[in-house]
Amino acid sequence: MSSTVVTKKLVYFFGNGKAEGTGKMRELLGGKGAGLAEMTNLGIPVPPGFTITTEVCTAYYQNQERWPEGLEEEVRRNMARLEEVMGLKFGDPHRPLLVSVRSGARVSMPGMMDTILNLGLNDQTVQGLIELSQNPRFAYDSYRRFVQMYSNVVLGIPHAEFESLLEKKKEERGVHLDTELSADDWKDLVRQYKAKVQEKGLVFPEDPWEQLKGAINAVFNSWNNPRAITYRKLNNIPHDWGTAVNVQAMVFGNMGEDSGTGVAFTRNPGTGEKEFFGEFLVNAQGEDVVAGIRTPRPISELAQAMPDVYRQLEEIYRKLEEHYRDMQDIEFTVQKGKLYMLQTRSGKRTAMAAVKIAVDMVREGLIDRETALLRVSPEQLDQLLHPTIDPEAKVQVIAKGLPASPGAAVGQVVLTAEDAEAWAAQGKKVILVRAETSPEDIGGMDAAQGILTSRGGMTSHAAVVARGMGKCCVVGAGEIKVEEEKKRFLVKDLVVKEGDWITINGSTGEVILGQVKLVNPSLGGDFATLMKWADEVRALKVLTNADTPRDAQVAREFGAQGIGLCRTEHMFFAEDRIKAVREMILAHDRESRQRALAKIMPMQKGDFKEIFRVMEGLPVTIRLLDPPLHEFLPQEEAAVAALAKELGVSEEEIRRKVEALKEFNPMLGHRGCRLGITYPEIYEMQVQAIMEAATELAREGVSVHPEIMVPLVGTKREMRLLYEQIRSVAEAVLARSGVKVEYKIGTMIEVPRAALVADQIAEDAEFFSFGTNDLTQMTFGYSRDDAGKFLPVYIDQGILEKDPFQSIDQEGVGQLVQMGVERGRTARPNLKCGVCGEHGGDPASIFFFHQVGLDYVSCSPYRVPVARMATAHAELKAKKA
Amino acid sequence: MSSTVVTKKLVYFFGNGKAEGTGKMRELLGGKGAGLAEMTNLGIPVPPGFTITTEVCTAYYQNQERWPEGLEEEVRRNMARLEEVMGLKFGDPHRPLLVSVRSGARVSMPGMMDTILNLGLNDQTVQGLIELSQNPRFAYDSYRRFVQMYSNVVLGIPHAEFESLLEKKKEERGVHLDTELSADDWKDLVRQYKAKVQEKGLVFPEDPWEQLKGAINAVFNSWNNPRAITYRKLNNIPHDWGTAVNVQAMVFGNMGEDSGTGVAFTRNPGTGEKEFFGEFLVNAQGEDVVAGIRTPRPISELAQAMPDVYRQLEEIYRKLEEHYRDMQDIEFTVQKGKLYMLQTRSGKRTAMAAVKIAVDMVREGLIDRETALLRVSPEQLDQLLHPTIDPEAKVQVIAKGLPASPGAAVGQVVLTAEDAEAWAAQGKKVILVRAETSPEDIGGMDAAQGILTSRGGMTSHAAVVARGMGKCCVVGAGEIKVEEEKKRFLVKDLVVKEGDWITINGSTGEVILGQVKLVNPSLGGDFATLMKWADEVRALKVLTNADTPRDAQVAREFGAQGIGLCRTEHMFFAEDRIKAVREMILAHDRESRQRALAKIMPMQKGDFKEIFRVMEGLPVTIRLLDPPLHEFLPQEEAAVAALAKELGVSEEEIRRKVEALKEFNPMLGHRGCRLGITYPEIYEMQVQAIMEAATELAREGVSVHPEIMVPLVGTKREMRLLYEQIRSVAEAVLARSGVKVEYKIGTMIEVPRAALVADQIAEDAEFFSFGTNDLTQMTFGYSRDDAGKFLPVYIDQGILEKDPFQSIDQEGVGQLVQMGVERGRTARPNLKCGVCGEHGGDPASIFFFHQVGLDYVSCSPYRVPVARMATAHAELKAKKA
Repeated sequence: MSSTVVTKKLVYFFGNGKAEGTGKMRELLGGKGAGLAEMTNLGIPVPPGFTITTEVCTAYYQNQERWPEGLEEEVRRNMARLEEVMGLKFGDPHRPLLVSVRSGARVSMPGMMDTILNLGLNDQTVQGLIELSQNPRFAYDSYRRFVQMYSNVVLGIPHAEFESLLEKKKEERGVHLDTELSADDWKDLVRQYKAKVQEKGLVFPEDPWEQLKGAINAVFNSWNNPRAITYRKLNNIPHDWGTAVNVQAMVFGNMGEDSGTGVAFTRNPGTGEKEFFGEFLVNAQGEDVVAGIRTPRPISELAQAMPDVYRQLEEIYRKLEEHYRDMQDIEFTVQKGKLYMLQTRSGKRTAMAAVKIAVDMVREGLIDRETALLRVSPEQLDQLLHPTIDPEAKVQVIAKGLPASPGAAVGQVVLTAEDAEAWAAQGKKVILVRAETSPEDIGGMDAAQGILTSRGGMTSHAAVVARGMGKCCVVGAGEIKVEEEKKRFLVKDLVVKEGDWITINGSTGEVILGQVKLVNPSLGGDFATLMKWADEVRALKVLTNADTPRDAQVAREFGAQGIGLCRTEHMFFAEDRIKAVREMILAHDRESRQRALAKIMPMQKGDFKEIFRVMEGLPVTIRLLDPPLHEFLPQEEAAVAALAKELGVSEEEIRRKVEALKEFNPMLGHRGCRLGITYPEIYEMQVQAIMEAATELAREGVSVHPEIMVPLVGTKREMRLLYEQIRSVAEAVLARSGVKVEYKIGTMIEVPRAALVADQIAEDAEFFSFGTNDLTQMTFGYSRDDAGKFLPVYIDQGILEKDPFQSIDQEGVGQLVQMGVERGRTARPNLKCGVCGEHGGDPASIFFFHQVGLDYVSCSPYRVPVARMATAHAELKAKKA
Repeated sequence: MSSTVVTKKLVYFFGNGKAEGTGKMRELLGGKGAGLAEMTNLGIPVPPGFTITTEVCTAYYQNQERWPEGLEEEVRRNMARLEEVMGLKFGDPHRPLLVSVRSGARVSMPGMMDTILNLGLNDQTVQGLIELSQNPRFAYDSYRRFVQMYSNVVLGIPHAEFESLLEKKKEERGVHLDTELSADDWKDLVRQYKAKVQEKGLVFPEDPWEQLKGAINAVFNSWNNPRAITYRKLNNIPHDWGTAVNVQAMVFGNMGEDSGTGVAFTRNPGTGEKEFFGEFLVNAQGEDVVAGIRTPRPISELAQAMPDVYRQLEEIYRKLEEHYRDMQDIEFTVQKGKLYMLQTRSGKRTAMAAVKIAVDMVREGLIDRETALLRVSPEQLDQLLHPTIDPEAKVQVIAKGLPASPGAAVGQVVLTAEDAEAWAAQGKKVILVRAETSPEDIGGMDAAQGILTSRGGMTSHAAVVARGMGKCCVVGAGEIKVEEEKKRFLVKDLVVKEGDWITINGSTGEVILGQVKLVNPSLGGDFATLMKWADEVRALKVLTNADTPRDAQVAREFGAQGIGLCRTEHMFFAEDRIKAVREMILAHDRESRQRALAKIMPMQKGDFKEIFRVMEGLPVTIRLLDPPLHEFLPQEEAAVAALAKELGVSEEEIRRKVEALKEFNPMLGHRGCRLGITYPEIYEMQVQAIMEAATELAREGVSVHPEIMVPLVGTKREMRLLYEQIRSVAEAVLARSGVKVEYKIGTMIEVPRAALVADQIAEDAEFFSFGTNDLTQMTFGYSRDDAGKFLPVYIDQGILEKDPFQSIDQEGVGQLVQMGVERGRTARPNLKCGVCGEHGGDPASIFFFHQVGLDYVSCSPYRVPVARMATAHAELKAKKA
């Protein structure tokens, strides 16, 4: 292969309003090269240059790392065109052309080569740069930067060795900042840098052509450095794609008062208003804007400072918006009165701006509704539904946890649920801070503005309950040490006492000291318009997870099309019921259990009636009791004693029961339908309550659609047994009532085995609801309560791309979901399939669920709008694909 | 369909040495009918009769539960033949023919109809029976039995209503036993029974033909009783198979001194000796033998009592053995000097007998080696490897637990591991009785004869360790209450104190009070011959799970072909190491961890060297550290204090660490390769120890084959990362050593996700070992430590056929194993696949593993012979299929 000859075109030129390539030639020119070509073709002034194709890189490797025939000639020819366009000459001591060299693969790939700037400088050409810029300090600073970058990237000398010379120089001069060094200082450093290179037995090339060849080879070689190879392996990028090389003329905004630089947005990225928005600096380079040493001026003032440039810029930004049909984020440089666009890309924007821009652009005829929908990411919408921290506010972040439930909240610290309720009753705003929460804390959580815990993950009790309440929550803030008895918490040396004000940000996980100003959400208007459009395109339904009439109401207002998961266990914790529940657990025989359950029945029925009423006309999926019974028993001495007294049994007996029910791995224990089978009277009571509630409302003329859901089924026979049991109770209630109510009996698919034998289970189950929380736990073998010990490391190291509890693992868990749907429908073609895990509100997961053919997703009330948008996106993306 | 006409033959006759059917007509005649035809055709005298085909039953249902045309005629014709053969007449007042009526489907199906005996009796024919039998008491007893059976089975009157009349009669007569009632008593009861029937508004038919029709219809109807329907649903038996009806002449062994009955085996079922073995009673019926009222005589005495019959019997049993080519268990009745065979079937036998009979029959030319192998069930072999309880011994069973590790053991009760060691050191034999065991008890378990626990399942710590040691163990004996501090245990009111003798049977789970005589196993001889034959036919290899040189030695002697699972964690518990392990866990940084690990390294290396040496020439698969670190820390106050002192840290610090490592669901926690990734130095130390051990032995000329196994891998990237880390450590050791050692790096497939993405994992893994214990836990979502609360109920109710921890769930977990093998081999066609869970020693599971193409199974040392036989069976059965 040593004689490989690339017969195709090797180099593509761009400049002077015309490019040989186009924006569509990503594979050949890389992402960056294709983008530069596109802008040039639009007639937008970009610094000219040329792109060496990815095929050349491949040929280089096939050719024992030598340039293919003809490359040198083509590079020299294109360099000559560049000199002509720029009116400068590469290596010229008076009017030297300087270039940047950058890598650019088909897909953005961290681990590849950094940029080399100012290439072409040497002891002669630096004089030319002084002539052109009239600024020796600038010229020598540029020179030493180039020597440093080149020596590092091409010759492999560590950065730190040059930095230490620079530090020494500053010490000698008694200064602190780079900017305080003079031209001579920089000049001397260039000498020292070169000496350092020589000392290593290496040669810094003075010849600009040698410099250029070295830089191009360095780009080629960076394709195969270990970091890049590892990255490609992990991301399944073929090794033979290769990288392109971009050589582009340098332009300088710091060549006098007729030069400058700026960044701008074509519309206001904060509000979405249609106004040119940004800032600029005269006689400055891009890095000066970033460094913040000088204060930039608003872009509108450029109209006075450089009227011609401003007019040109206005024309360009309109052209860009029209071409890209989106708000653009642009960077420009003016060199001696001439405008160059350095970059244009779709601009980042707030949720509010995203919605406004999308809706406005439809009105302006720039985009259609579908495009508008795709412009607003579902995740962003979440920002609009909760109070947020004023972006102008200065904040002191003292700790960071997991962003468990979005929005922000301000309040005074309290450390127990009782205090939260007591303080709130006095009209105070509180943040409940706990090591972790338990079902007994529900009242306090409800009373608080927000919840902060030091332990637990995204699906811990606090997180799940808070999301259900739409309440701001930060969990697992490990730096915080909660000292409940001392009524305070510590963050290292900082002591935060009860009553101190804090602010928490449930969207970022930040814990902030003091009261911070919040901004309230505003729905309606453009938001409502966009959501209407979303509903028009989507097929996948959005239901909600709601256990209370209040949650159900909120969700319905947010557009929920029914309840996909109504957990019944929370109903068991209410103060007036827990006693009967405990009596049931402590009972010695079926009859005593039934007596205790009979006390709970009317209350359960009441709950269901209220929820059915709120959800009139829509399906309400009720899950029968799921958690292991020990969760309902008290653990602490005092509580045990109180219960013993209340029930008239010995403490010993209660402790024995607590001990007997204890489990090594409660997650895999005696729960779900395993309870329903070993204690059939529990489910019988619940089904009776559901069906009596339904028939009583039906008699009033309310349209009710109960769907009874059995948790944790793993075998065909569990489903059959329970199906028959449920049906017989339900039919008996219907027969007694004399009214007709359509109802369904189905199951959750949450143990891997259920997905594997879904065809068998679907023989009886009329619907499947994938419980992807538990399914993820069991498929990976990760306890969500414990995974905090290694999951962060796994995500850091790239072992997992995302937390599988937040976004469904499509490769593994997803396979089971798909299998479950497909196999289930072979047995029952019209099987209704949905998902009710946390993933039901995650856009990436929703896209996957759409692909595998689910009928609905169910998520917490405050995620409903997010899910509505995500389902619309899924539909649109599928249409495109 | 009401005019359905069955044009085929409806009834098949058998009798007088000729049957219309054959043994191969199971589908048409049912299992029982086909068997009766077969014996008849062999010229063996069986009570004649006829079989109504299964097709008739189907036609009956298609015909609105009416007899198909022609059936009545055929039944009458066959009845006439039967009368002729028997020389009796159905309904005749002098010489009445009596018959039995039985159901008989293609497959044995509990839930269908019981037998009706003595059909044909009424007030007239009973007189005939008196004439024939000369025994009015016998005749009236037979009559009342018939009325009771018929009224119950055909008319549906509960058994209990007749029993209460019988009880009343006995009270009146002041007697306790049925046998104490007179002919008149029975006659009166017949009258009372009939009055009871009438009282219900039902009619007991006097006409024998009506009786027969009713009985036949009852058989047909029993096919569709709810129990039978449920059974078919659960077992996927088609509803349209139908059942056959067998009508057979009654014969009586209690018609005088020329009559009798007996049961016998064609060879000794206890020892396998070739001798006619059994017992008989003159002038008796089968149930008299069972009732044990009279003592039966040895069969050899029949030669004197009834020489002709004995000669005939000898001829028949030889014929049967020759026909069935197996030892037969026969039942016979002699009625007035005429011999009838009531049944022949393959006889149950002890393991020892099974081996001897199989080997003898090969020598006799009756069967070939393959058949001989299939005659000995793998499970049975287990009996031969352990001491067993003398079958003659009288025992007092005081409790029952799970049979966790087979064999029997006798010893004095001790309640702590320390006591076990101390007493054993004094030469005493002890049984260690604990609520449950923990790793700290290992020394005591080793010192004890056997282990008994009140908690835990078949895969609890005690069970797993005991099986590994080949030591008798009973776990989860819930009736036992262990009071460690009082040095005793209770079983209800019974107090068993330290020092009391008990015997435990690990094959049945029985706990017996006192010392019982044990019988020691004897291998060699026929056993060795049979095992050699097994090895000749099998392809699937049998490896062993062994953590110590001693276990490895035992396993090798039992024929293990290497180690499939060498756990390394037990090595960490040894007294000289646990300190360094704890130091490692408490370390604050990588360097201190490495320092602590460096202390363990030489000891680990030593372990590996010894094991490699024992397994010279065979593969040794070593699993890197698996359990969560908290298992290595002390929990109790005193132990914490001691450790703090030893390590020079505060107790508070240790408690903090214990707290920090605590997990909600340790099974799904920070363990396996998750440890290897978060603390890479642990695996680095272990790999270094393995490879140094290997190279040092290789330098001595020992052939070593280490296979390094990573536990709990679930993702491609975990495997890649660890593969590279292990390889780099291993290669470094090899390079230093200068010798060559072949080694492999592989993984366990034990989380469901690993099976789902097995193709990705096999890109790096060179072998898969299915850890079906954990895979079962996660696929079902059953914690094996907790499942004891519902699994027994699940098995009782038929929700699960077997405990999935004992025999692999082929439908669910098995799918994942198959998927893992298939997908793994798409990525790596020569991927070595095996299993190292508890299922590796279970014959049914082994058959499945053979089917899905595993290369080996690995089981505990004492299961190796069982697995060798099971793999041979798997091979032979696959060949046949």
